Amino acid sequence: MNSAIVFDLLGVALFAATGALSASRKELDIIGFLFLATITGMGGGTVRDLVLGVPVFWVVQPLYILICAVTAAGVYFTAHLLESRYRLLLWLDAVALAAYGVFGAYKGLLVTGSPTVAVVMGMMTGTLGGIFRDVLAGEPSVLMRKEVYISAAMAGALSYVLAAGAGLTLPLASAVGFLIALGIRSGALAYGWTLPSYKARPGRNPEDIP
Amino acid sequence: MNSAIVFDLLGVALFAATGALSASRKELDIIGFLFLATITGMGGGTVRDLVLGVPVFWVVQPLYILICAVTAAGVYFTAHLLESRYRLLLWLDAVALAAYGVFGAYKGLLVTGSPTVAVVMGMMTGTLGGIFRDVLAGEPSVLMRKEVYISAAMAGALSYVLAAGAGLTLPLASAVGFLIALGIRSGALAYGWTLPSYKARPGRNPEDIP
Amino acid sequence: MNSAIVFDLLGVALFAATGALSASRKELDIIGFLFLATITGMGGGTVRDLVLGVPVFWVVQPLYILICAVTAAGVYFTAHLLESRYRLLLWLDAVALAAYGVFGAYKGLLVTGSPTVAVVMGMMTGTLGGIFRDVLAGEPSVLMRKEVYISAAMAGALSYVLAAGAGLTLPLASAVGFLIALGIRSGALAYGWTLPSYKARPGRNPEDIP
Repeated sequence: MNSAIVFDLLGVALFAATGALSASRKELDIIGFLFLATITGMGGGTVRDLVLGVPVFWVVQPLYILICAVTAAGVYFTAHLLESRYRLLLWLDAVALAAYGVFGAYKGLLVTGSPTVAVVMGMMTGTLGGIFRDVLAGEPSVLMRKEVYISAAMAGALSYVLAAGAGLTLPLASAVGFLIALGIRSGALAYGWTLPSYKARPGRNPEDIP
Repeated sequence: MNSAIVFDLLGVALFAATGALSASRKELDIIGFLFLATITGMGGGTVRDLVLGVPVFWVVQPLYILICAVTAAGVYFTAHLLESRYRLLLWLDAVALAAYGVFGAYKGLLVTGSPTVAVVMGMMTGTLGGIFRDVLAGEPSVLMRKEVYISAAMAGALSYVLAAGAGLTLPLASAVGFLIALGIRSGALAYGWTLPSYKARPGRNPEDIP
Repeated sequence: MNSAIVFDLLGVALFAATGALSASRKELDIIGFLFLATITGMGGGTVRDLVLGVPVFWVVQPLYILICAVTAAGVYFTAHLLESRYRLLLWLDAVALAAYGVFGAYKGLLVTGSPTVAVVMGMMTGTLGGIFRDVLAGEPSVLMRKEVYISAAMAGALSYVLAAGAGLTLPLASAVGFLIALGIRSGALAYGWTLPSYKARPGRNPEDIP
């Protein structure tokens, strides 16, 4: 647990920061910052713990709530100094996604022993924070962006599981998963990396209107 | 369990297919297909198991994850052959709703023994997959469509509970619930069946603007 | 429990009524009323119980489901008599938020013993019903309204926890929390109370377009 906890704290604090940045974009008040930061920071891990059937982490250790609160306040008082809040949001989100994804895979593997479940856990919890944030703030979901996003979380979780299975130590396996997820998502942000997206063949599949 | 499991597998696989079809309409990449298929296929059952306080089905049996993944890949490689992906999505959703609704009622009754809880379980889990899919994909929710939708899930769940209470065997009671839900939803899709919708009396209740 | 249960019933029934009013604004059918009323009335408490790791209240006591159903039916047959359904929705939502917030804090404190967790529980469960309602009905979320909303739930939960910590009896502490939350939210509705909202300094922070 000792070394994996770093990724947990990183994921929670950075997702909280993206929630607060989203609140700043919507010009909410300080409590709105607190609320979005808390949900974004702890939402993914809450679902992870519920699904795994273990006690929810922030109910066991309320310190996490304070981390989110302090992060929200910090963003509230400094966000006006930034040149582009949305750009920072995307980059913090990238690091949080990588950290949360690895920790999700770690905890999933620890609790269930199933590599498949662990990968799904990492993929879902790495992306859920951003989903909750975007749905609550009424922003177009980061999920629907064309550049690689879910894939980065999945690659990180998968790498962690493979590295752990190959016998690497926990700190090393975590670092491998984290760097792979972050590298892929960074490439996507910096160079617009995409996977081939599904395209209906022209003339064969006319747009269906709901 | 033996015969009810058919409805479970049917619901999971077909909801997964509708998630993948939704991904194709949004032109996501293969991982986006996987993600939407997994959430749509397993989301309703996950909430059901959490609320009932039993271990989440796909954590116990990771095979469900593979079913969703295979379904997503299948849709990815064949969806361009379809003439109307949205029409197929609606019909698969109808079968999934009926199957998932019956299995939700079955499991709710099995765990709690309360027919009321069982009906609510069936109604909610039959519709949650579609709700998650539409919210995540940013589509107008199927819930808000005018033709009968939630009512079909409820009727199916209620019929199953009544049939089981009347002493029918499990396969028979499940079939009754499934066919009633599917029949009602099919009629709604084919003939536009609706229940009388709420209408404010003209002149009495001017449109309130939020 | 005896006196706190009043706040629980109040919160469930009134949130159910706001769900039904939202259904009337969307001109859904009677089952749509039932569905939105049930989710809005019981959604926040369901998340609360899951996170606290206690059995979900309406699975233990299905009477809550009937309360939501009766409320939905009542609204279905009387909503056309109202002059402004949205105005009533907002006021019922205010009372429900206060009641649910206090009961959430009460139950959070009872189960975990942590005041911090209790405040977060009250804040979240007081606002979740409205969030679910607005997301499902596709309305702009009440969260994003400029007047004080989350803050009212938080103030009520905090007051309850402080009052209980100061040794007040349960009925008295509950009443204090309830009245403070309701007072703040009422002031917001009646006089447009706001907290200072975050504003980017002009010229320093150009609008970022996603």
